[in-house]
Amino acid sequence: MAVFTSVSEAELTAWLGDYSLGQLLELQPISAGIENTNYFVTTSNGRFVLTLFEKLTADDLPFYLNLMAHLARHGIPCPSPVANRRNQLLGTLNGKPACIATRLPGKSTTAPNHEQCAAIGAMLAQMHIAGQSFSQVMPNPRGAAWRAATAPQVRPFLDAQQAALLDSEVALHAQNNFASLPQGVIHADLFRDNVLLEENRVGGLIDFYFACSDALLYDVAITVNDWCMNADGKLDDARAQSFLRAYHAVRPLSDGERAAWPLMLRLAALRFWISRLYDKHMPRDGELVNAHDPGHFERVLKNHISTQQTVWL
Amino acid sequence: MAVFTSVSEAELTAWLGDYSLGQLLELQPISAGIENTNYFVTTSNGRFVLTLFEKLTADDLPFYLNLMAHLARHGIPCPSPVANRRNQLLGTLNGKPACIATRLPGKSTTAPNHEQCAAIGAMLAQMHIAGQSFSQVMPNPRGAAWRAATAPQVRPFLDAQQAALLDSEVALHAQNNFASLPQGVIHADLFRDNVLLEENRVGGLIDFYFACSDALLYDVAITVNDWCMNADGKLDDARAQSFLRAYHAVRPLSDGERAAWPLMLRLAALRFWISRLYDKHMPRDGELVNAHDPGHFERVLKNHISTQQTVWL
Repeated sequence: MAVFTSVSEAELTAWLGDYSLGQLLELQPISAGIENTNYFVTTSNGRFVLTLFEKLTADDLPFYLNLMAHLARHGIPCPSPVANRRNQLLGTLNGKPACIATRLPGKSTTAPNHEQCAAIGAMLAQMHIAGQSFSQVMPNPRGAAWRAATAPQVRPFLDAQQAALLDSEVALHAQNNFASLPQGVIHADLFRDNVLLEENRVGGLIDFYFACSDALLYDVAITVNDWCMNADGKLDDARAQSFLRAYHAVRPLSDGERAAWPLMLRLAALRFWISRLYDKHMPRDGELVNAHDPGHFERVLKNHISTQQTVWL
Repeated sequence: MAVFTSVSEAELTAWLGDYSLGQLLELQPISAGIENTNYFVTTSNGRFVLTLFEKLTADDLPFYLNLMAHLARHGIPCPSPVANRRNQLLGTLNGKPACIATRLPGKSTTAPNHEQCAAIGAMLAQMHIAGQSFSQVMPNPRGAAWRAATAPQVRPFLDAQQAALLDSEVALHAQNNFASLPQGVIHADLFRDNVLLEENRVGGLIDFYFACSDALLYDVAITVNDWCMNADGKLDDARAQSFLRAYHAVRPLSDGERAAWPLMLRLAALRFWISRLYDKHMPRDGELVNAHDPGHFERVLKNHISTQQTVWL
């Protein structure tokens, strides 16, 4: 599934001649992931992940690679792209843009506990602070313009009640302007499968290819919507409280952010409801197997609307 | 001994407020080292080493810190200095220039085997290659001018035969010019205690505070003079062969470098004979306990002169 472009040991050894990473010891394909081809690579210098970019182009990639390098430089446990002999983070392998980055310890969890939610909350706040000194800007490609363009494409697949919900939420957020809230670099996809844990400690944040510039609170809402959510689409108040208190202790939330919280949770749910509807009804080749259930985020959204979540600090 | 400036947990916690490294979990002084104050620091983000610079100043330090950051970016296992919120690698703590860098795995060995010598040889070559794209330059502060200035200061402490040896070697190398050999950034002090090993694998190169710009072969000679040396001051030919073959496989030695090898071994021995004589006879405060025996490098030098070592490739 996830290996779209295969790489042999001989090809990788030749490519590594442009790096200072020592001898290739092991090459192992990674099955997870639907956007890129990934391999675990062990050399005499250590453990790395090789990524061949199947859709992102050499124009898009510097933002993501420079961001990861910046965050790693600030001590955030994220993949640190390795530079080649010409001091470039991005190379080309078997015709694809390619990058080799440090491999982080830990594994993802599907059932996070309170301590893990607190650890993610604190780490997200640290990432937001470290991102403040990153100079590149990437407008959110899943922002208001994307919602306005995508909602009409998925609307025909909805029943009347769903369509009304979609219309009203898209209209609601089209009027909102979160530009007055603290802005910066956000991960924008920090779901459970994008965090490596060593017990209750964060070993690594991975998969920065949705990262962009937006309201920091939006990232908090996306992350809480996954980490602190029960399977029925209802927030676990206690886990959400653990998350937000830990976040707040590192980067205090402003009054404006507290006021915006209930709407931000809805916006974050809407974004994934729309994208999952799109991926389900308009799948691209090779993505069918991994299509997620849009119904989950529809339930999350409805629950947020009915409960008007407040911030627990 | 090595903690000249003490740092409390409260002081460090306050200082870490300027970083994105999470919560301080542990602070432990390191007893090794005679130039700086070092602490092991564990935070929720990982394991780090805090260094307070006792002699080096904020003018000297950017070269070393930027070099380590550059090499780490290229996948060389060396301490990676962490940037603070203002994106600076160098801070100030308790009145001293200070830096916090990643902590590397492994421990040093006093009795390296063949495999370890080969691993160091390969890693040194990788470091030399990765350093080729580093743009800053630092003339060797222990170069010809230093030898010419320091030899007369230690000469009065030598007997007639030793003084004649010192004079002739200083004069010999004053005439040599290795500028035609490949140049670049060298570690210049990659002794056994500056390498962390995990069994036969190099876990880390540390202590870059003698790094400078010079002939790469000079670094090879300094390193071989320690890693492949027997206690009697005679090179272990087999270990030296393992080292040089592994180095050569990564960065092939030129004909000019092969021709210069016997003299380079002598120059590398002379440098440490002089500095150890100086440290023994003109100790600075706090360094007495760690003074090394100059006699070792006197024997190394004499053995090199008598055997005229050739390169084994």
